Amino acid sequence: HLYGVGVGPGDPELITIRAAKLIKNADVIAYHSGTAGRSIARTIADPLISEGAIEELLIYPVTTGLIDHPLGYYGAVDDFYHESADRLSKHLGVGRDVVVLAEGDPLFYSSYMYLHDRLSPHFPSEIVPGVTSLTAAATALRRPLARHEDVLTVLPGTLPVPELARRLADTDAAAIMKLGRTFAGVREALRQSGRLADALYVERATTGEQRTMPAS
Amino acid sequence: HLYGVGVGPGDPELITIRAAKLIKNADVIAYHSGTAGRSIARTIADPLISEGAIEELLIYPVTTGLIDHPLGYYGAVDDFYHESADRLSKHLGVGRDVVVLAEGDPLFYSSYMYLHDRLSPHFPSEIVPGVTSLTAAATALRRPLARHEDVLTVLPGTLPVPELARRLADTDAAAIMKLGRTFAGVREALRQSGRLADALYVERATTGEQRTMPAS
Repeated sequence: HLYGVGVGPGDPELITIRAAKLIKNADVIAYHSGTAGRSIARTIADPLISEGAIEELLIYPVTTGLIDHPLGYYGAVDDFYHESADRLSKHLGVGRDVVVLAEGDPLFYSSYMYLHDRLSPHFPSEIVPGVTSLTAAATALRRPLARHEDVLTVLPGTLPVPELARRLADTDAAAIMKLGRTFAGVREALRQSGRLADALYVERATTGEQRTMPAS
Repeated sequence: HLYGVGVGPGDPELITIRAAKLIKNADVIAYHSGTAGRSIARTIADPLISEGAIEELLIYPVTTGLIDHPLGYYGAVDDFYHESADRLSKHLGVGRDVVVLAEGDPLFYSSYMYLHDRLSPHFPSEIVPGVTSLTAAATALRRPLARHEDVLTVLPGTLPVPELARRLADTDAAAIMKLGRTFAGVREALRQSGRLADALYVERATTGEQRTMPAS
């Protein structure tokens, strides 16, 4: 069996009962990482991973910047998913249960789906949803993300500033994901949309390193 | 302590480890219900509730329809939250731990916040996020809710049809909550926005009664 398992936003106690069982009993634990080889999902699941488990670290070939592939970023990433699926299919083919860890939820801005698309036609599979960073951030702020009949918009910080500003001005509630290098643009979009004074920033929600502050 | 605890979308195994511990050890378990007295959150948490726990059923005075209150719906609901907070504060005041169960997540379209606003200034409190129906529905469909740089819009089915159609036409991905009586209007908005052919309907995701079908 292939399992795509959400491990939640950071606190290991926010893993679900189902996910904890599957992680404990997995023959193989797989997870993605950037080129530095660090995996937040692996860190969250750590207390549950059994000593005998085989680990498969799936290292993205590129993050941003220049790419040495004839088809550019998408070519490099497509090769990577193909090779990753290949590695996992060897375990599945000999009857091992493979758990792919996903930060948050496997179907919410996650890489799990690219493995699922390639492997689920050939092997039985199950997806286990998890707590997302969306409600974890609201928990950190102790404020509701959405009430009653609110429209809630989830926006990637990578959108062009005018587009981000337009959408921020046209919603009751918003969550902006993928901050980092994008932060200056996100702040400018908040300013343009008149939402900067109300906007709050949350970092590493539900972990020991959680920080919250006004976005301004 | 007051605890606002998300119990997830339906499958009791999708309760988090933290939530399970708090429910098991609670002195008082509180939950909301409609006028019929049924609580989905209570049903989900049932295997975890200890025999000695005191239960507080908070029955909404009204759902929709005619209301016998001088200030109408909001007046009646405000009285209800006031009385509910009063009932729970009596337990908190004598040192009992009170767990308020919330379907999904306590800060995602939930009633928990109205109790939190009234009680948290007076008693220590903690919020435990949960798996929402949003990613549970995606799990039921085995399809990603959002990828990469998608804009995701969460819409209440109660919006006017033209407004719903406008927003559906202007997003990469959308989830529509609060179906039921609103369904004919929601389907019309999907048709007007050109999204009907792609739209999928999910009912009671992750439970034994889960059903999925084309929205058309």
